Amino acid sequence: MPDIADLIKGVLRDDVRSVARAISLVENADDDAQALLKGLFPHRGESLILGITGAPGSGKSTLVDQLIGRLRARGKKIGIVAVDPSSPFTGGAILGDRIRMMRHSTDPDVFIRSMATRGHLGGLAKATGEAISIFEAAGKDVILVETVGVGQDEVEVVKLADLILVNLTPGAGDDIQIFKAGIMEIADIFVLNKADTPGANRVEIQLKAMLELGLKDKDLPPVVKTVATEGKGTDELVQAVFNLTAKKERADLAARRKKLIAWMLKDITQEKLYGLIGRAVKASEFERYIEKIFSRKIDPYTAADEIVARLTDKRSREKR
Amino acid sequence: MPDIADLIKGVLRDDVRSVARAISLVENADDDAQALLKGLFPHRGESLILGITGAPGSGKSTLVDQLIGRLRARGKKIGIVAVDPSSPFTGGAILGDRIRMMRHSTDPDVFIRSMATRGHLGGLAKATGEAISIFEAAGKDVILVETVGVGQDEVEVVKLADLILVNLTPGAGDDIQIFKAGIMEIADIFVLNKADTPGANRVEIQLKAMLELGLKDKDLPPVVKTVATEGKGTDELVQAVFNLTAKKERADLAARRKKLIAWMLKDITQEKLYGLIGRAVKASEFERYIEKIFSRKIDPYTAADEIVARLTDKRSREKR
Repeated sequence: MPDIADLIKGVLRDDVRSVARAISLVENADDDAQALLKGLFPHRGESLILGITGAPGSGKSTLVDQLIGRLRARGKKIGIVAVDPSSPFTGGAILGDRIRMMRHSTDPDVFIRSMATRGHLGGLAKATGEAISIFEAAGKDVILVETVGVGQDEVEVVKLADLILVNLTPGAGDDIQIFKAGIMEIADIFVLNKADTPGANRVEIQLKAMLELGLKDKDLPPVVKTVATEGKGTDELVQAVFNLTAKKERADLAARRKKLIAWMLKDITQEKLYGLIGRAVKASEFERYIEKIFSRKIDPYTAADEIVARLTDKRSREKR
Repeated sequence: MPDIADLIKGVLRDDVRSVARAISLVENADDDAQALLKGLFPHRGESLILGITGAPGSGKSTLVDQLIGRLRARGKKIGIVAVDPSSPFTGGAILGDRIRMMRHSTDPDVFIRSMATRGHLGGLAKATGEAISIFEAAGKDVILVETVGVGQDEVEVVKLADLILVNLTPGAGDDIQIFKAGIMEIADIFVLNKADTPGANRVEIQLKAMLELGLKDKDLPPVVKTVATEGKGTDELVQAVFNLTAKKERADLAARRKKLIAWMLKDITQEKLYGLIGRAVKASEFERYIEKIFSRKIDPYTAADEIVARLTDKRSREKR
């Protein structure tokens, strides 16, 4: 059991082993984790939160790997929050991605926290917020939030970054069709990866035409072409990120951080309420409700009302 | 405002307009919806719940469309629960899918409920369970639960079906690699769609070899080859579904239904608790907490504790 006060001090001076231990502690999510996060919370960093999203197979992981390399070459310290659905469909791919990023695994200034193990009950905002808290307290310069752009929660979490990169690939079939539906509004920079593929120029022209149509009065987000596997264009991409960051309004950044806080606070409150249910209704009682619902003796709405009533009754009884 | 008792009667005799109205009512999720669902709940049908999952682009929607046609030809009444992440990435594709299924839209015995609008707070099990309840009460023979196989919740929900079809496509890159990670265990039938593509036979051989390796002592799930765009193989698929359904153990089916109930009950309880927070903590107070967290005057864990305490305090005060 590490001493929490010491661990906090270690994270604050960006001690490699302390940061690693803090992340493990938070992954296990016990009371110590909460004490740690409370202790780290007052220490705000000046980290840039960079969201990266793209459809599966768009070469996003290779791009992230290249970005890490370029940011490290500029002396930036990096924390990575990898939001991957822990789906059987992508399980293999995720493993591959992680291995690809392993070349940075001996670099003490590159930390990855994977979100692959999240449960049914949401908690994505909480887990992301906690990872960001640790990285901010440790003084990371850039925090990369990497998501697969499928699933509403994954898209929501990338919206909370300071700057959002959307990764496209030519030849991925109906890219343009797919990306029509709302991605334009959230992208700060488009990365057209695999730009050496036939048809890349056509896709670029289509994308730009679409952006001009869709975002009439606004600044068009830059489109940066890369060939991540060869490292081409990634320096230009990093430059575009820093140029755009410098132009971002403080108020805009604050609004996004507040959205993350609101979402996170709801997650945490929900989890605490859930803990209360567990204490008010025993597992065996919950099983009895399930049997009664299965045999249609009670409907699930009435059962839920009874559970909620029991929770608040118990609390008021304890108070007497 | 429809009279709920009349609406219940209408659904029970599978009146087209009543089923449509019931689905709309549940989508709007107000108090009437709960009264309706409570009223329908005791009426259990003998519906077969069929889960269909597959990676985006595997031609799943065309396959579902074909399945609907074949099932209708056998006189089966069908309800469809379409679980689509309402992601900007898939928005366009979903629209396309819906249009493809439109050819059944004039058929009164084919109903689709789409789950595209679900919020952050989960609720997928609740929404799925509710749609199933309506379809069961209306006496649908087959309820199709269609999911995109990315995202943990989507995979979880398909697990709750009586029978699970997993849709594969040759040439979708690293299909085999991707499907290694856990899909074998949940599939009852593999559908190798686009079977006229070069390489289809190779993929079939690989898949079967993998299944034999992975599921040593169990019955191997059948692999059915289809060309959904031409309707090839879909009759064989429907036959395979009914053959396998006849062999399924009652206990196994009951266990899956109970899992759905447990998950749904948690969703409903959570939602009711959430409603309580809304009443205990005003929006303006919640905003104040966000501001205080943003300015690091309070950490989100302490804020959540205060919110939960206020909730239970208020309840006990009301009781006095």
